[in-house]
Amino acid sequence: MAQKITSQEKDYSQWYLDVVREAKLAEHSPVRGSMVIRPNGMALWENMREALDQMFKDTGHENAYFPLFIPKSFLSKEAQHVEGFAKECAVVTHSRLKSVDGGVEVDPESKLEEELIVRPTSETIIWDTYRGWIQSYRDLPILVNQWANVVRWEMRTRLFLRTMEFLWQEGHTAHATKEEAEAETRQMLDVYETFAEEFMAMPVIKGVKTASERFAGAVETYCIEALMQDGKALQAGTSHFLGQNFAKAFDVKFQDKDGEHKLVWATSWGVSTRLIGGLIMTHSDDQGLVLPPKLAPTQVVIVPIYRSDEQREAVLEYADSIYDELKELGVRIKVDDRDNQNPGYKFAEHEAAGIPLRIAVGPRDLENNNVELARRDTKEKNIESREGLSERIQKLLADIQDELFTKAKERREEMTSHVDSYDEFRKVIEDKGGFVWAHWDGTAETEEKIKEDTKATIRLIPLEDGEEGKCMVTGKPSKQKVLFARSY
Amino acid sequence: MAQKITSQEKDYSQWYLDVVREAKLAEHSPVRGSMVIRPNGMALWENMREALDQMFKDTGHENAYFPLFIPKSFLSKEAQHVEGFAKECAVVTHSRLKSVDGGVEVDPESKLEEELIVRPTSETIIWDTYRGWIQSYRDLPILVNQWANVVRWEMRTRLFLRTMEFLWQEGHTAHATKEEAEAETRQMLDVYETFAEEFMAMPVIKGVKTASERFAGAVETYCIEALMQDGKALQAGTSHFLGQNFAKAFDVKFQDKDGEHKLVWATSWGVSTRLIGGLIMTHSDDQGLVLPPKLAPTQVVIVPIYRSDEQREAVLEYADSIYDELKELGVRIKVDDRDNQNPGYKFAEHEAAGIPLRIAVGPRDLENNNVELARRDTKEKNIESREGLSERIQKLLADIQDELFTKAKERREEMTSHVDSYDEFRKVIEDKGGFVWAHWDGTAETEEKIKEDTKATIRLIPLEDGEEGKCMVTGKPSKQKVLFARSY
Repeated sequence: MAQKITSQEKDYSQWYLDVVREAKLAEHSPVRGSMVIRPNGMALWENMREALDQMFKDTGHENAYFPLFIPKSFLSKEAQHVEGFAKECAVVTHSRLKSVDGGVEVDPESKLEEELIVRPTSETIIWDTYRGWIQSYRDLPILVNQWANVVRWEMRTRLFLRTMEFLWQEGHTAHATKEEAEAETRQMLDVYETFAEEFMAMPVIKGVKTASERFAGAVETYCIEALMQDGKALQAGTSHFLGQNFAKAFDVKFQDKDGEHKLVWATSWGVSTRLIGGLIMTHSDDQGLVLPPKLAPTQVVIVPIYRSDEQREAVLEYADSIYDELKELGVRIKVDDRDNQNPGYKFAEHEAAGIPLRIAVGPRDLENNNVELARRDTKEKNIESREGLSERIQKLLADIQDELFTKAKERREEMTSHVDSYDEFRKVIEDKGGFVWAHWDGTAETEEKIKEDTKATIRLIPLEDGEEGKCMVTGKPSKQKVLFARSY
Repeated sequence: MAQKITSQEKDYSQWYLDVVREAKLAEHSPVRGSMVIRPNGMALWENMREALDQMFKDTGHENAYFPLFIPKSFLSKEAQHVEGFAKECAVVTHSRLKSVDGGVEVDPESKLEEELIVRPTSETIIWDTYRGWIQSYRDLPILVNQWANVVRWEMRTRLFLRTMEFLWQEGHTAHATKEEAEAETRQMLDVYETFAEEFMAMPVIKGVKTASERFAGAVETYCIEALMQDGKALQAGTSHFLGQNFAKAFDVKFQDKDGEHKLVWATSWGVSTRLIGGLIMTHSDDQGLVLPPKLAPTQVVIVPIYRSDEQREAVLEYADSIYDELKELGVRIKVDDRDNQNPGYKFAEHEAAGIPLRIAVGPRDLENNNVELARRDTKEKNIESREGLSERIQKLLADIQDELFTKAKERREEMTSHVDSYDEFRKVIEDKGGFVWAHWDGTAETEEKIKEDTKATIRLIPLEDGEEGKCMVTGKPSKQKVLFARSY
């Protein structure tokens, strides 16, 4: 099975697709740009969702659900917003099919008075709803999140990273003051950072986007950026300070303590199934997926090895005793007791699927009160005593989690450069890739020129002030270095 | 707040809408037929989803996610299926908007080659996918479930009970043999029965639908039916034995152990946010929602009562000690310490929201080491000693769960009639409503006549054989009584 995966070195792009396939995470569907998320991919997304959802709830948010369809007129109410999304909208225009010879056709008589847009994001429908929820300062803040599917018509898609339909969460909050909304925006950015680093073991840098990379309708877009193994950046999450833009567009005001009617302040923030792409390209290798234990749907798999029915019974009993012990400790474990596949096949399958630890037990292990323990990330294999095994495994899972993060962080450091001249910049971007810190004069023109010359974009402006300097392109003053990279 | 709810006696329909509003479960959205599920409604759905999901996983199912859009040509592949859904399809025909003076319009140049249907159900896209997953008997069974939104264009909608878009789960399984698929269909019907009765405290009757009420594309549709407080039936869940219909339509075959290529057997089964409507109309009253403790997002709310800051501190400390103790025991509890609302307002709000138990604590309770404990379902209020309170509350929650079920079951029995003549049938349906058992000759003509005469439909044919008799309409032989009711 492992041979089916193209090596990273040979073709990183193909390697990625091979891993997605061999780990049975997802596949293309007949609807161009849409994907089927297979059970392994969905179990992973469910674990990510559960961890994030708990963090959202711990910070006072509740879930709600808003309609899939947005009236066309809503989208146009916020000028920048509609400009940003108009070109990628799936539009519902009819409500019926009718039978014709040999099939069905759209019934022209079912044409809608107003077309409906399949939500590309939900600011408009949500702010239209909030108008009814908000009268007084007592109704604020509103801290709501939604787990949903959204559709953005994309021509060039890539499983998880860019698909026409994807799953995500979108938080939409309403506040009485600018300060509160800004604090919320930053708080959720921190939540994303914590999730990325502590659960995904994927180091990220926090920052703010330039005007040209801002979310359509936002005043500021904050982001976390991660660096993939091939030296390209991935925007892993965004948190938008929306100012009063949507409150203005949808006329959402509240009566403040002072009796005055004021426009409400807004934020929105989201991460999506795209994170699964980031996870793959942070840890995986030529044998397939590598998963951090905190998110792995199965953390430990036990493969029993036997040649006779008698051996089978004894070995399975041994395996079950290990299973019971670890299950009791809260470890996500399974025994792969399929009879129609041999151990070699199972090993390759579990390797491709990224299960962090594999325990193999055969008749000899039983005799010696041992097991063979294999680590997916480092490929170490050891004979371990059955005695105290569960506690060692618990510790090992925590160690793997930490080591994956450390390794990813070291790789990122190795692939991060600081440059002062544009020549150097172009050379580094072309030859080495990775993150490149450089001075920029703050203009959209220079940003655009760099992008055209090198395909590198400004991933973020750091949140903390840095050392002043001169723009590498124009020589004009620069307040601090900003982070460049080619990106997904 | 409670006055805002119309009494059940006065207008059951309006009462239902008032409860949904006052419990803050959901509201209509500007897109006709779509609803916004508010945080209280979503928290309830999440609890239902979690319990069901665990039951699905315990019976060997995994979750996956399939595309929202289905190519029009897929729908037409199974003749009955397309006939059933053609008249309620949201159709996507374009992929872009373009700016025009004063707004945006659909860009005619973005017209799709093939229209896409927003899934009304996913059999077709899933069976198209299964063709790629199934080659050999080793690949079977496939036991997959999906949590998703679906759209069926409905003209007459009602929050939760019938909405254009709704949330649901749809299980889709593939099997090597007819027997196995039939067993799966029945197993999932049992899962639904268990969920309805043990979690929702809503008694249901299991049975099979008549041909005219069958799911479009199914060989048999099994169902659970519940009886609402107003004497109308609610179909609460369905489990379909699909035979080989979808395997034929999508050419899904497997090589069996005997080397032969055979068509795969299928089932599908689903429940939706409609269950929330059923929950409301099973237990709630003129004060608002009544929730069974197993599903209540908040099981116990503590309302602190005080007149001074000094009292406030002491009372809150007392409240927190109760909170900590119950939280530790796994009870879903919260302290309502909002300063901007008075206790009376809070009581009415918690009552409307259906929180099973309310604890009020004031300075005098503190002195006497007491609390005031109020039960939502029976409206009993008692002074209870702080000593051993947590254990009594745990037991009380379990008792409430049981009593709600018993009460609902007794109500159903009172509203169930057995009739032998059509005159009696018409009188009972008209005057009393409820479930009516009667003999039927098994023909679609008689079924249709009864429906036209009385608006009552056959809810189900029972799974066990009953006593033979004669059709109440035609006098022809009948194998057993079947269950009639007017329904939602």
